[in-house]
Amino acid sequence: DKKPNPGVPERNNQKNMHYFAFKRNTLYCENTRIKKLAEGFGTPLYVYSERTIREHYNKIKKAFKEVKPLICYSVKANSNLSILKIIKSLGGGLDIVSGGELYRAKAVKCRPEKIVYASVGKSEAEIKDALKYGILMFNVESAAELERINSACIKMKKKAKVSLRFNPDVEPGTHTYITTGKKETKFGLDEGSLKKIFLESKRYKSIVLCGIHIHIGSQITTSHPFLKALKKVSGIVKYLRTKNIAIDYLNIGGGLGIVYGEEKPQTAADFAKKVLPLIKPLSLKLIIEPGRFIVGNAGVLVAKVLYIKDTKSKRFIIVDAAMNDLIRPSLYDAYHTIVGVDKVKGPPGRSSDIVGPVCESGDFLGKDRPLKVKEGDYIAVLGAGAYGFSMSSNYNSRPRPAEVLVKNNKTTLVRKRENYKDLIEKEV
Amino acid sequence: DKKPNPGVPERNNQKNMHYFAFKRNTLYCENTRIKKLAEGFGTPLYVYSERTIREHYNKIKKAFKEVKPLICYSVKANSNLSILKIIKSLGGGLDIVSGGELYRAKAVKCRPEKIVYASVGKSEAEIKDALKYGILMFNVESAAELERINSACIKMKKKAKVSLRFNPDVEPGTHTYITTGKKETKFGLDEGSLKKIFLESKRYKSIVLCGIHIHIGSQITTSHPFLKALKKVSGIVKYLRTKNIAIDYLNIGGGLGIVYGEEKPQTAADFAKKVLPLIKPLSLKLIIEPGRFIVGNAGVLVAKVLYIKDTKSKRFIIVDAAMNDLIRPSLYDAYHTIVGVDKVKGPPGRSSDIVGPVCESGDFLGKDRPLKVKEGDYIAVLGAGAYGFSMSSNYNSRPRPAEVLVKNNKTTLVRKRENYKDLIEKEV
Repeated sequence: DKKPNPGVPERNNQKNMHYFAFKRNTLYCENTRIKKLAEGFGTPLYVYSERTIREHYNKIKKAFKEVKPLICYSVKANSNLSILKIIKSLGGGLDIVSGGELYRAKAVKCRPEKIVYASVGKSEAEIKDALKYGILMFNVESAAELERINSACIKMKKKAKVSLRFNPDVEPGTHTYITTGKKETKFGLDEGSLKKIFLESKRYKSIVLCGIHIHIGSQITTSHPFLKALKKVSGIVKYLRTKNIAIDYLNIGGGLGIVYGEEKPQTAADFAKKVLPLIKPLSLKLIIEPGRFIVGNAGVLVAKVLYIKDTKSKRFIIVDAAMNDLIRPSLYDAYHTIVGVDKVKGPPGRSSDIVGPVCESGDFLGKDRPLKVKEGDYIAVLGAGAYGFSMSSNYNSRPRPAEVLVKNNKTTLVRKRENYKDLIEKEV
Repeated sequence: DKKPNPGVPERNNQKNMHYFAFKRNTLYCENTRIKKLAEGFGTPLYVYSERTIREHYNKIKKAFKEVKPLICYSVKANSNLSILKIIKSLGGGLDIVSGGELYRAKAVKCRPEKIVYASVGKSEAEIKDALKYGILMFNVESAAELERINSACIKMKKKAKVSLRFNPDVEPGTHTYITTGKKETKFGLDEGSLKKIFLESKRYKSIVLCGIHIHIGSQITTSHPFLKALKKVSGIVKYLRTKNIAIDYLNIGGGLGIVYGEEKPQTAADFAKKVLPLIKPLSLKLIIEPGRFIVGNAGVLVAKVLYIKDTKSKRFIIVDAAMNDLIRPSLYDAYHTIVGVDKVKGPPGRSSDIVGPVCESGDFLGKDRPLKVKEGDYIAVLGAGAYGFSMSSNYNSRPRPAEVLVKNNKTTLVRKRENYKDLIEKEV
């Protein structure tokens, strides 16, 4: 039983590509003991590995190096300013989806020409803020929004670059809630509508229609759906050229899957090898929007075991992290590997549900896990770097966790723990 | 077509018991125009009706008046301090589930002897805070937690009253995530374990085991599961008496369903009529913990239509409220009636999904609704008073909405809208 914990290597593992590993039977983030962090910063606690973020970024950069893409990190995955600063230091841009994310991009002084702005519902104020900052382009998903951006440009005497988001109607084989390239979703434009807008582009005097954007979903583990979508895009680009409509950009979005449990996702290199033969002949500037791929496995949520509760039907390990801290298991039925921070010898424990203190059955982090821990021990929920803190709430009046960033043996508090006073500060 | 919107009466409706109604074709909260509030406070906006809250509270009080229960409002449903103050002014107590909720209870100066504290995972710090404030009692769900409260009492030289939570293993016929009285859930103690603790109560020197607590789930529309659970409780109380173990309290929790769409839930009076014949013979002090029943229909979420997007397969009404503001549709597949704030004459609109700007397919407020609105119009999501704002997050870096409380023709801002700066305030 040498591998009780899939996804947690004994040493740094190049395949899974993260720096959370056991050394002398205790979990480390890079060269820092997780237990020390839990004791020092308290729990629940998000711990991020800077090296993992850097290496993931560089894997993508390397895989696509022959076309030198603009890599725009998807801020919604994890919007902590310190993480955005790492991306910036690596030369990356940002994929934003709201005025709040634009505010964050500005806070880290991300160069405007490295920002792309997607979302099905940009408000006028958000559009104006983005125009004012001079972002590279908007990704637009409806004629109505294009109209609004055009009017905002006219009012502000500016021009805006726009990529149209194409909905290729492909099935990515992921959770319905993170499937975004099927025709029944709110996202993008079908082929007919997209072509129509390109053909009528003169209507939008202040818009430069310069690219096509696709984003078919998230946590996709094979290249097949990407290839299917890209073939359709290829056809559209060629069609537009026959109509003398030239575009400059192809944005293939994000969506690369990572290892949460037993997945065997394609590597960045595999992915590039598959998609580049379709992309290169188009001779367009490539934009990629990885989020989860960069930060997903670069973070863990550390919690303390409050109680062990044995019932006839099962064991519950009650910890001090809950659905408000990490909603993925509850919302997407997502699997996260969960390990004890200190390894315990002997046979695995009774199969257990790892749950939080929140008062509903939807509050669980993992189910039926043979985890061997006792009261006061720490556990780590792996793969919590993406859509972890960024989706956290104050449900049950629980202050949100602190976040720390580890770089080798140094740790920085990158977001302070909320306190009770914070909960009511806005109430009057 | 006189009733296109179930749940929204033309006039105040005593059956649905809320004060959101159309007058002269526009939606009012009590005597205040919703549109005026949306324009004045911006959107998305939570609007609460004080009168609705008061009347719901009084319905329960009246239904159970012959046993004069302690009505402890379930803070997690909506923890805004102004709502807690209304409950306090009505003589109600509070059902809390965390240190954060205790902090709120203290902030509104709720008398400690009106506070009951439930949760499967109370930390030592939380227990000590509650003991210090002198709350009426803890609801306890495991032997391990009882042990910890006992030690905290010894350290603090205090005694604590405790009700044990009984898990009656009944099926409430509600969503799995809000089912809490089945044996597979983390909640409560099975009959054998519960009796064992009562029989061995002398082990816990500083604990006064004084009651039994049940809470079988939420949004339950019939009395049947309650009756089934209460029959089991009755049996336990009688058994304990044969062992000379006397208890003083029976806490029947919350869980009363409300009208979201076409439900026809039992009224408080119906419910009382059914359960009182089982409760009265036990001669115990009754505690009730209503949450959703009091505030659920006392709040709406108002949003502005950003875009109408027609696709071949469906229409999308894109509004400025999203899953981060109200996660119930996405998390529980919950139905909320959605209406245009201004009534539009003529046949209903094309069946539409009402969605927010958040970048995932899980971001929807309602599906397939014949809503007739245009860009710039306001809509109201009804029944958003409970588990609305309290579960809200900053996902996609979206500042959380403002909350206002309406009393007749007066409106008070009870929570300020968050701004971009708030999003990053804790980041360092």
